[in-house]
Amino acid sequence: MDIKHVTVAGAGVLGSQIAFQIAYRGFDVTVWLRSEESVDRARPRLERLRRTYLETLEAMKTDTNAYSRGLVDSPHVTASQLDQLKERVERAAGSIRLTTSYEEAGRQADLLIEAISENPDDKIAFYEKMANHLPENAIIATNSSTMVPSRFAKFTGRPERYLAMHFANQIWRRNTAEIMGHPGTSKEVFDEIVEFAKAIAMIPLVLHKEQPGYILNTLLIPFLAAAEQLIVDEVADIETIDKTWMLATGAPVGPIRSMDIIGLRTMFEIGNLDKRAKDPGSVQGRIQRMLKQHIDRGETGVESGKGFYSYQKRV
Amino acid sequence: MDIKHVTVAGAGVLGSQIAFQIAYRGFDVTVWLRSEESVDRARPRLERLRRTYLETLEAMKTDTNAYSRGLVDSPHVTASQLDQLKERVERAAGSIRLTTSYEEAGRQADLLIEAISENPDDKIAFYEKMANHLPENAIIATNSSTMVPSRFAKFTGRPERYLAMHFANQIWRRNTAEIMGHPGTSKEVFDEIVEFAKAIAMIPLVLHKEQPGYILNTLLIPFLAAAEQLIVDEVADIETIDKTWMLATGAPVGPIRSMDIIGLRTMFEIGNLDKRAKDPGSVQGRIQRMLKQHIDRGETGVESGKGFYSYQKRV
Repeated sequence: MDIKHVTVAGAGVLGSQIAFQIAYRGFDVTVWLRSEESVDRARPRLERLRRTYLETLEAMKTDTNAYSRGLVDSPHVTASQLDQLKERVERAAGSIRLTTSYEEAGRQADLLIEAISENPDDKIAFYEKMANHLPENAIIATNSSTMVPSRFAKFTGRPERYLAMHFANQIWRRNTAEIMGHPGTSKEVFDEIVEFAKAIAMIPLVLHKEQPGYILNTLLIPFLAAAEQLIVDEVADIETIDKTWMLATGAPVGPIRSMDIIGLRTMFEIGNLDKRAKDPGSVQGRIQRMLKQHIDRGETGVESGKGFYSYQKRV
Repeated sequence: MDIKHVTVAGAGVLGSQIAFQIAYRGFDVTVWLRSEESVDRARPRLERLRRTYLETLEAMKTDTNAYSRGLVDSPHVTASQLDQLKERVERAAGSIRLTTSYEEAGRQADLLIEAISENPDDKIAFYEKMANHLPENAIIATNSSTMVPSRFAKFTGRPERYLAMHFANQIWRRNTAEIMGHPGTSKEVFDEIVEFAKAIAMIPLVLHKEQPGYILNTLLIPFLAAAEQLIVDEVADIETIDKTWMLATGAPVGPIRSMDIIGLRTMFEIGNLDKRAKDPGSVQGRIQRMLKQHIDRGETGVESGKGFYSYQKRV
């Protein structure tokens, strides 16, 4: 595995987590941002991640539930080892470079992880521009949740060195990387990214073929849509729906609480991808209307203190 | 709650469990069976349940994992209390009456639970015949998994006293009862069945409206169908698919192992309900072909020692 210098494009919720985790695992990280305003938004996000990583490591000294697989390989770890890992957090926080320059972002990159907005035109423009500044051997990985890599491969200047690597929110805890090539991705590049995923403490989840939604969202989206249908058709109370799933499968949460965790804005965006949602009388249309009503009231899920359920606000 | 005498029609896998659990909880139970051959098949099934209940209660003395909510209200129970419950098992096993007579089955019943084969014509013929032998005030509940009660209400002679009460396999452990009326079910009857569910140590899961598949299968079927699509499209290895779900949601099993537990014959029957499965080139058609190949090789799931996964045969 020859990857040493990594550039992450975009520092939204996931981009900032990806950058921080990679730096934490000892790689040299540059973050590319579209504008100085984006830089100003990125700094406090990275600072919050620094605190979250430090607090999580501290909590692991006394609370077994705090264990986060992305931070340390085993839950059996001493307080002094955790203190050493805190130093690693500080080094990571101090080492990440932010830039708006394509040239600076591209020059040294062995791997570019694209985590910019889910807008295809923006992605194409970004790839075309960045292609001129990357070393010939650089690999490009997209973190896109909703678009498959074959859609963009030809704009990257290196289709055989382009693939998707999809992270989960709260990367330090939910340390999975779904890895998916397009038909033209070289096996060598694919394998190198699997190795890289392990090196940054991710569990690689290998896809053999392109699949919109990868594995997780392919399973999750129809499951959550079924729960949404039960809600809009008023078949049962939300507590009953969740309880049914938890009792039958042993899962720690049901689908409706899961949606509150994912966030109702995200659920609404996913719902809009379904063309049937345009018909206001369809199940999908009624689901979108229900979600919009929640969002308009500020009930966007756990984060806001209220979604389908009410949550105690964090103090 | 005025229910004392309960008749269970049918003693297949679920019918026998329903009858045994109700007798275990102290109700007077008659089992109606279509023929003497059915009676001969029912006896060893009930005998196996007697042993399973006794073994589970014995195991609960030393193994916290053996705890079964249908057998005792709390896991904090002494060995002598468990021995008393074993006596209750013996009394239940000795008390269940089997009959092929409609008259004998109907005469005293406060509640008739219909758990015969999932064939609509059989159900209609049964309801029409039994209606003549039941007391006027008797309630009828169907355990049908696939058909809604409005389809049969008019054949029962008491549509307002008819509804669905749907149990899970391994009733003593997975002690849920999904309770669903049709538009004509009286509220009083519905509430009485909720009370009855509690009295037989079930957790009642209340549906406000008719919904094919109730709550659980409404959630489960599209979720499992998505996993089947990932398999037939060879998107990822079965272990990876299950691991993705377990890591992301904290669930104790993934969808593919769940299908092995449910059984591939049942999955095949569910798949046949989807009209698209008739087209062999469709995803649904390819899924049915894959399931049939497993079934033809005797790989029907956990029960046979092999399904999608291999299992150690029980000795």
